[in-house]
Amino acid sequence: MTSKLPRISQYDPFELSLTGPTEGNPFTDVTVGARFDLNDRVHDVTGFYDGDGMYRIRFMPDAPGVLRYRTVSNRPELDAQQGERVVVPARPGSHGPVRVWNTFHFRYDDGTPYIQIGTTCYAWVHQGADLEAQTLDTLATAPFNKLRMCVFPKHYRFNHNEPQLYPYPRRADGGWDFTRFDPAFFQHFEQRVDQMRALGIQADIILFHPYDRWGFADMGEEADRLYLRYIVARLAAYSNVWWSLANEYNLMRTKPPEAWDRYFELVQQADPHDHLRSIHNWQQLDVHDWEMFYDHSRPWVTHCSIQHAYLDLVSAWRAQYGKPVVVDECYYEGDLPDGWGNITAEEMVRRFWEGTFRGGYVGHGETYLDPDEVIWWSHGGALRGQSAEQLAFLRRVLESLPPGGLDPQPRISDTHLPSVGQAGKFYLIYFGWRQPAEVTLTMPDDREYKVDIIDTWGMSREPLAGRFRGTRTVSLPGRPYMALLARAAELRS
Amino acid sequence: MTSKLPRISQYDPFELSLTGPTEGNPFTDVTVGARFDLNDRVHDVTGFYDGDGMYRIRFMPDAPGVLRYRTVSNRPELDAQQGERVVVPARPGSHGPVRVWNTFHFRYDDGTPYIQIGTTCYAWVHQGADLEAQTLDTLATAPFNKLRMCVFPKHYRFNHNEPQLYPYPRRADGGWDFTRFDPAFFQHFEQRVDQMRALGIQADIILFHPYDRWGFADMGEEADRLYLRYIVARLAAYSNVWWSLANEYNLMRTKPPEAWDRYFELVQQADPHDHLRSIHNWQQLDVHDWEMFYDHSRPWVTHCSIQHAYLDLVSAWRAQYGKPVVVDECYYEGDLPDGWGNITAEEMVRRFWEGTFRGGYVGHGETYLDPDEVIWWSHGGALRGQSAEQLAFLRRVLESLPPGGLDPQPRISDTHLPSVGQAGKFYLIYFGWRQPAEVTLTMPDDREYKVDIIDTWGMSREPLAGRFRGTRTVSLPGRPYMALLARAAELRS
Repeated sequence: MTSKLPRISQYDPFELSLTGPTEGNPFTDVTVGARFDLNDRVHDVTGFYDGDGMYRIRFMPDAPGVLRYRTVSNRPELDAQQGERVVVPARPGSHGPVRVWNTFHFRYDDGTPYIQIGTTCYAWVHQGADLEAQTLDTLATAPFNKLRMCVFPKHYRFNHNEPQLYPYPRRADGGWDFTRFDPAFFQHFEQRVDQMRALGIQADIILFHPYDRWGFADMGEEADRLYLRYIVARLAAYSNVWWSLANEYNLMRTKPPEAWDRYFELVQQADPHDHLRSIHNWQQLDVHDWEMFYDHSRPWVTHCSIQHAYLDLVSAWRAQYGKPVVVDECYYEGDLPDGWGNITAEEMVRRFWEGTFRGGYVGHGETYLDPDEVIWWSHGGALRGQSAEQLAFLRRVLESLPPGGLDPQPRISDTHLPSVGQAGKFYLIYFGWRQPAEVTLTMPDDREYKVDIIDTWGMSREPLAGRFRGTRTVSLPGRPYMALLARAAELRS
Repeated sequence: MTSKLPRISQYDPFELSLTGPTEGNPFTDVTVGARFDLNDRVHDVTGFYDGDGMYRIRFMPDAPGVLRYRTVSNRPELDAQQGERVVVPARPGSHGPVRVWNTFHFRYDDGTPYIQIGTTCYAWVHQGADLEAQTLDTLATAPFNKLRMCVFPKHYRFNHNEPQLYPYPRRADGGWDFTRFDPAFFQHFEQRVDQMRALGIQADIILFHPYDRWGFADMGEEADRLYLRYIVARLAAYSNVWWSLANEYNLMRTKPPEAWDRYFELVQQADPHDHLRSIHNWQQLDVHDWEMFYDHSRPWVTHCSIQHAYLDLVSAWRAQYGKPVVVDECYYEGDLPDGWGNITAEEMVRRFWEGTFRGGYVGHGETYLDPDEVIWWSHGGALRGQSAEQLAFLRRVLESLPPGGLDPQPRISDTHLPSVGQAGKFYLIYFGWRQPAEVTLTMPDDREYKVDIIDTWGMSREPLAGRFRGTRTVSLPGRPYMALLARAAELRS
């Protein structure tokens, strides 16, 4: 019987569109939502006003089955509407939201492993159609599967252009009306998020940031909360959404520190799909402590989002917070004067491998001076650096390993370095700037291992002949950026 | 009248040799010393037994003038002998012991600046005549003006040879007699120290270390104290001596931690010339805190001797201890498996510049695998690495600057990096692995500056045309290892 019902796809956003009142302030006067029942699991979901009398309620079914809904509103014309859909299995390549897995790692909702290789284009959605199209073209062939991006436009060095759209309409006196939204702004924003979804790229959506000349960083808590409810209602049905409460939250002197706790709770309660949540810190350059971090052990934080240059500290943060560690700002490949914007491509790749080697995940960004001030880190456009190919290689290496993530393991060598991997399955040692000409491995004695020598910068992976058990001395080329991977011989290559 | 007296040189060791008893245990039974009066300053100095009935008392006069002495002994034949010498001004190039200067820096006793560029050959005096001669040949043309070296032989990976000489004689039962010394061992040792003195190289003498198979690391406190008094009596008159109480003191589980305080006090009291004193820590690789340091703020510590890989922390240690910071082990250029022994030449040079940039001093070492297991870091011999030329360049750059040392200065650029130098005289920025293509300088506005762009790896120093005042944007080549030096234009180049 259900086969004649309209069909929707698991993990795709399903949207109910309803026509309702336009008078007064529909953003605040009208409440609208729906109760969704999917295979007897019930979700109460809040909708939103999209302008021109249109009200929308979005929901992402996370399983095949029958989806029933019934709307709830304080306006009769929006209330008590009901219907049913058949949810068919997800399209190929559609895996649902990313979830925490094995405490320190990620996988998609359908169980497919997700190995985060991030990048950053803070303000790319505020650059106009041509540059935004170029950014999407670049992303289509780049190694990145997560992008950090701001909702609000950005005001900063090299960022002085006005966006074409604003999130709020102007009042008669010229100020912003923070009680209403400009739906065109959000329609545009969510179009970009959806295009990223089609490319398989997670949108790490930065809800607040301090780099502001318009007043969006200092709207007051009531407006902040209205905004958070609105954007979560609009975007939570997109499977590729992550919530980043703020970029460099500790530079936002406009909000009391405890406001972040309340905003986390609001987002967590408003999001029916429980997307990943974190908050990103500013870190003083060359300062080694991490008192500037938000307390990532709080229950609403799903993973650590960290700005720091010292990737070997990832193991300490894993131990401290007991959650996945994503160093999504390890500074940027480029040649800016700014201390955060001028590491080499080699150093960017080294930081990715170092963070991986410590059981975490890393984010990329690129900041080369440009006469037109189009810089990937903020504007998107084209990649001009030299690290993307090596990061693609890193991704291929990681994807070749047994799923489940890399966790700290005991030493298997005389190098004084730990190893990372999965006990009895595989062990990785990354040497970074170290350049040993040989190492002696001592493997767990219960099985045979095969060893690959990996040149992480030269992007080669050379298997050593034979299998071995116990202790063996292995030659290395005596140059930096090498890694050594020992895999249990019974595993498929 | 005094012109007919025998002449000795300021800063050279003066030795009184006396013949005395040989029966019993002259090392413990006989006390011998002298009161030296130099220009009405009095020093009570302990002598030592040198075997074959010879007793010696050594003193290093630190000023021209008349030196009078009178011996003191519990044996009449050694007691109450007196004499006079004329001390003539120091030989050219002989500047006396190195002292702390300007809180964080060093100069020689005669006021000549001393800019420490260290290296390490722990066990070089235990390698036999041929290799020891080669080490001295190497040092003669190397950039180093300090060498860390152990008194006791070393037992460790790559260090399994027996020395030709031992500090103690054997007892009849085959064990060591820790109540007597073998003078031949110490004669040999002090010959090497004196050869280093002739080369202008400070001997950072490591009094204890944990890498031992003979029992010298665990002689008990009574024997330790006898040894300390003996070696200080023998060596303190050599102007190039520094006392390092231990290498990796915190790995010496054989001594209670508070013993180090007592040993420091003993050395301080026994040394009439007040040579520099410190103690070197073991540091767990990749650990960022420094709880493993001895408390360098204690009064008997003249400077911090530190093992650590993170040279940007020097500024924190300066602030914490208020003394010169010498990171004399930042790990070693080489290709060993061991995590402390395989950084690149580029990284070694970077660490020297980074430590310099933070207002400190750094030590070199080299650990390339060798079929004969002759490794500079321990055995001496020849340098095989690639960093010495760049370290010589660093030394030349530092020697070209106004004396007085480099101290942290405010930012003079938009790079987020501090600067280091002397207020109003010169400012240095070292970019390390950062590669800005331009920086904007904002100099103190009261004078004109000249700017040099320094390639610390390529060893070039290019002056920019003209002088400038205030703010100026400067191009850099956009590659790593660059530095920028701004000097007040009125200073001589």
